[in-house]
Amino acid sequence: MKIKRTLHTEQTEFQKLEVVETEEFGNMLFLDGMVMTSQKDEFVYHEMMAHVPLFTHPKPEYVLVVGGGDGGVIREVLKHPSVKKVTLAEIDGKVIEYSKKYLPEIAGKLDDPRVEVKVGDGFMHIAQSENQYDCIMVDSTEPVGPAVNLFTKGFYAGISKALKEDGVFVAQTDNPWFKADLIKNVYHDVKEIFPITRLYTANIPTYPSGLWTFTIGSKKYDPIEVSDDRFFDLDSKYYTKEIHKAAFALPKFVSEIIK
Amino acid sequence: MKIKRTLHTEQTEFQKLEVVETEEFGNMLFLDGMVMTSQKDEFVYHEMMAHVPLFTHPKPEYVLVVGGGDGGVIREVLKHPSVKKVTLAEIDGKVIEYSKKYLPEIAGKLDDPRVEVKVGDGFMHIAQSENQYDCIMVDSTEPVGPAVNLFTKGFYAGISKALKEDGVFVAQTDNPWFKADLIKNVYHDVKEIFPITRLYTANIPTYPSGLWTFTIGSKKYDPIEVSDDRFFDLDSKYYTKEIHKAAFALPKFVSEIIK
Repeated sequence: MKIKRTLHTEQTEFQKLEVVETEEFGNMLFLDGMVMTSQKDEFVYHEMMAHVPLFTHPKPEYVLVVGGGDGGVIREVLKHPSVKKVTLAEIDGKVIEYSKKYLPEIAGKLDDPRVEVKVGDGFMHIAQSENQYDCIMVDSTEPVGPAVNLFTKGFYAGISKALKEDGVFVAQTDNPWFKADLIKNVYHDVKEIFPITRLYTANIPTYPSGLWTFTIGSKKYDPIEVSDDRFFDLDSKYYTKEIHKAAFALPKFVSEIIK
Repeated sequence: MKIKRTLHTEQTEFQKLEVVETEEFGNMLFLDGMVMTSQKDEFVYHEMMAHVPLFTHPKPEYVLVVGGGDGGVIREVLKHPSVKKVTLAEIDGKVIEYSKKYLPEIAGKLDDPRVEVKVGDGFMHIAQSENQYDCIMVDSTEPVGPAVNLFTKGFYAGISKALKEDGVFVAQTDNPWFKADLIKNVYHDVKEIFPITRLYTANIPTYPSGLWTFTIGSKKYDPIEVSDDRFFDLDSKYYTKEIHKAAFALPKFVSEIIK
C-alpha cells in the first residue's frame, strides 16, 4: 500500500505506535510494525470478532474486550440491545488517544455511557475477575511485546474463570498461511479448557495473507448451532447470518492444522 | 513479497511474461505485471475454478478451459473420472512453455492423453463451437491486453452457444474491494444470458485484497443446490463440499455489489 503521509509516530511505554494516511485504505494504525486497522477494511475484523460470539450467546449483557483500544469491537458490541455494559481493558492509553484523534469513526463509541474504559493490563484484569462476563473478546496484537501473555494456557484458564457458567470467548489467532503453529497451539490449549472450541475465518485485505482466523471457546453454546430465529438485522457491511455459518467451513488445509 | 531472482522475462507476441522466484510463495508467474499464479497458493484458484462447476454438473465429460496456459485448472479437471476430454484454448504458447519449465507441478498434466492443447484465440474458439461442452472455465487475466474480449456480453453469448443444453460456465471476476464495477457488470451480463447466475469467493493471498470472486452461469443446474451424495472425495487442499456451499455465502458488501 502507498503511504501518503505519517500522521503520528511514537514509542509508547509498551510499543511503537504509528498512524499513517494511505492511498487505498485511508488512515491506518500500526503497532510494532503490524497493521492493526484501516479505515477501509476495519469493519470485517470488528464485525466478525464481535457478532459471532454475541449471536452465539442468547442474551449477552456483560462484555469484556481485552486490547482493542481502537474501539472498533466496542462499536459493534453496542449494536446488541441486550448488552448492558462493555468493559475495555487496554494496556496502552496512547492507542485509545490516537484512535480517537485519527480514526474517529472507529473509536467514536468509546464515549458511550454503556462503555467502561480501563487502561491497564488485560491479563491482570482477567486474573481478578470471576463469574462476571457473558462474552470476552481478545483483540490483541500478535504474541510479541505486550500481548505475549495473552497467548498462554494460563490466560485461557483465567478467561474461563472470568466468564459466567455459559460464557463465550473469542480471540484473534492470525493467519493459516504463515502462522499454522500459532493456530494449532491456541486451538489445542483452548480445547483443554472449554468444552466447545471452534475456528472460523474472515477476509481482511490489510492483514498478512488476507485470510484471518478467530478461535472461539464456549462453555455451553455452540456457535455453529445458532438457530435461525436468534439472528436479528444489524447495521453491518460484512456479517450476515449466512456468513456466520459459512465462516466455520474451513479450507481443507486449515482444518488439517487443527486436527 | 520478496523476489529472490528473476528466472525468465520476455515480451511475448501478446503480453509481458515474467517468472520470478520469491521467498514466501516459491516460483511465480506474472503477465503484464499481474500475478497469475504462485507455487504456494495456486491450489486455491485452480481447485475453486474447476471443482465448483464440475460438481455442479452431474456428469461432465467434455470440458474447455479458455486461457489457463499454466495448466493448473486442467490438472484439477482431470481429477473428475467422468471427464473424457479437456481442451485448452490458450492464446500465448509462451505461457505454456514457461509454465512447464518453471512450474512443473502445476503444468505437468498438460501432457495427459485426455488433454488437447490448442494455442489460439479463445474468443474465436468459442465462436466456432456449438453444443459441444459440459463445462467451460474462463481462466483469464484482467480485462486488459489479450483478455479484453473475454469480458463482453458477446463472449458470454458465445459460451452459451458452445455449451450443451445443460452446460455450466465459470469465469474469474477479480476482487470486490477494488473491482466492484467489473463484478457488477459481468454479473448482470451473464444474468441476461443464463437462467442461473451465481457469485462465489475464495481466499487467494497473492491476488489483490486476498478475496477473489468467480461468476457462474448455468443453463440448468444450480451450484448451491448440489445434493450431498453427488460429492466424492478428492485430492484437494482447499476445496471440500462444505467450502463449495460456504463460498456462495457473500459478505454483505459483496452481495450489495450484485443487487
